[in-house]
Amino acid sequence: MSGSEPVRPDQGLFIVFEGGDGVGKSTQADLLCRWLTEAGVECVRTFEPGDSLVGTKIRQIVLDPATGDLAPRAEALLYAADKAHHLYELVEPALRRGAVVVCDRYVDSMLAYQGAGRVLDIAEVERVARWATGDLRPHLTVLLDVDPSEAVHSKVDKDRLEAAGDVFHQRTREYFLQLAARDPEHYLVLHARDSVEQIAAAVQDRVHQLVSAPPGRLVS
Amino acid sequence: MSGSEPVRPDQGLFIVFEGGDGVGKSTQADLLCRWLTEAGVECVRTFEPGDSLVGTKIRQIVLDPATGDLAPRAEALLYAADKAHHLYELVEPALRRGAVVVCDRYVDSMLAYQGAGRVLDIAEVERVARWATGDLRPHLTVLLDVDPSEAVHSKVDKDRLEAAGDVFHQRTREYFLQLAARDPEHYLVLHARDSVEQIAAAVQDRVHQLVSAPPGRLVS
Repeated sequence: MSGSEPVRPDQGLFIVFEGGDGVGKSTQADLLCRWLTEAGVECVRTFEPGDSLVGTKIRQIVLDPATGDLAPRAEALLYAADKAHHLYELVEPALRRGAVVVCDRYVDSMLAYQGAGRVLDIAEVERVARWATGDLRPHLTVLLDVDPSEAVHSKVDKDRLEAAGDVFHQRTREYFLQLAARDPEHYLVLHARDSVEQIAAAVQDRVHQLVSAPPGRLVS
Repeated sequence: MSGSEPVRPDQGLFIVFEGGDGVGKSTQADLLCRWLTEAGVECVRTFEPGDSLVGTKIRQIVLDPATGDLAPRAEALLYAADKAHHLYELVEPALRRGAVVVCDRYVDSMLAYQGAGRVLDIAEVERVARWATGDLRPHLTVLLDVDPSEAVHSKVDKDRLEAAGDVFHQRTREYFLQLAARDPEHYLVLHARDSVEQIAAAVQDRVHQLVSAPPGRLVS
């Protein structure tokens, strides 16, 4: 079973974009991957939840309004299952062959939305998420931060998460910021209202340092 | 959030049938429920995985051959999510109103199939399963035991579990027996090759004792 062998910290480079809906994570992930590809670096652009056949089905269960009142623990476990399969099928193989994996959302989103945003004990949710991912942590997480009250929502569909209200978004934002503050070496916090070009340049600057440095030194 | 309040041990009666495929769990669960209903006791007959809209979708993901090589942790987490939602939506409300819940498969199946049968650390799988279920344990688990080599397979469809081979079935059987041996007060092990009537009578005898005794004394 290849999935049981952990990825070594010196294999590949794992970069995650985090933040609320509509802050530009997807745009910046695309720009970073294009920049890397043009520099001759293999870049795998992916996202959570859902970037696998299994993940798509899981995402349908969680986001479908017909699902109704989903048990909070079931929701957390479904997101954890998505992560486990996504790593197994896509992220870990790419890292093993030395690629850069650029992922839109990862464990922090799960912790922010399932833990801080809902009724579950955050330490318990984190334990489940860490088990699901074999404790694989990104070399760098770029947090695109913005006050929810000034966020531009590009999506018009009101899925279950977006229907949860302002207090929910404020709590998730605070939780993202706490995670970043706890581990500044592996986070880059940028103001999401800066221009697309400004943000992309700041990301490239940081990633350039990572690509240049021996990867083994990049994880704690 | 009603789901966050644990069910008390003196609320209702939770009875589970466990064992391999084709040993008669479903038949015996039906017979027990009919017997209870005729005695004027409310009985809720259910099964895992899958006895909810969410559970049905989860089951489709796990058992669909198109899913292919599902990450072992993802499989365990999906089964755990199914359990969490099943309890939240059906089992716990029934127990709270004092009903007898008769369930075909529960946590033991997950431990036997995901833990002993596959590549995962059984203690880790159990921790996930206990979290998913809020550590709600059955008042009684009836294990219908049979040597896999003499089992009569009533199902002709070869789903992913059944295709896993004899060694797998032998290991799950042994794991079921270990769980029962560890906690004899809450298990009734019966030989699945006995007649349907013999088994039903033995189950009724044990359940009669449970219904007669103060339920608070029935859980450790």
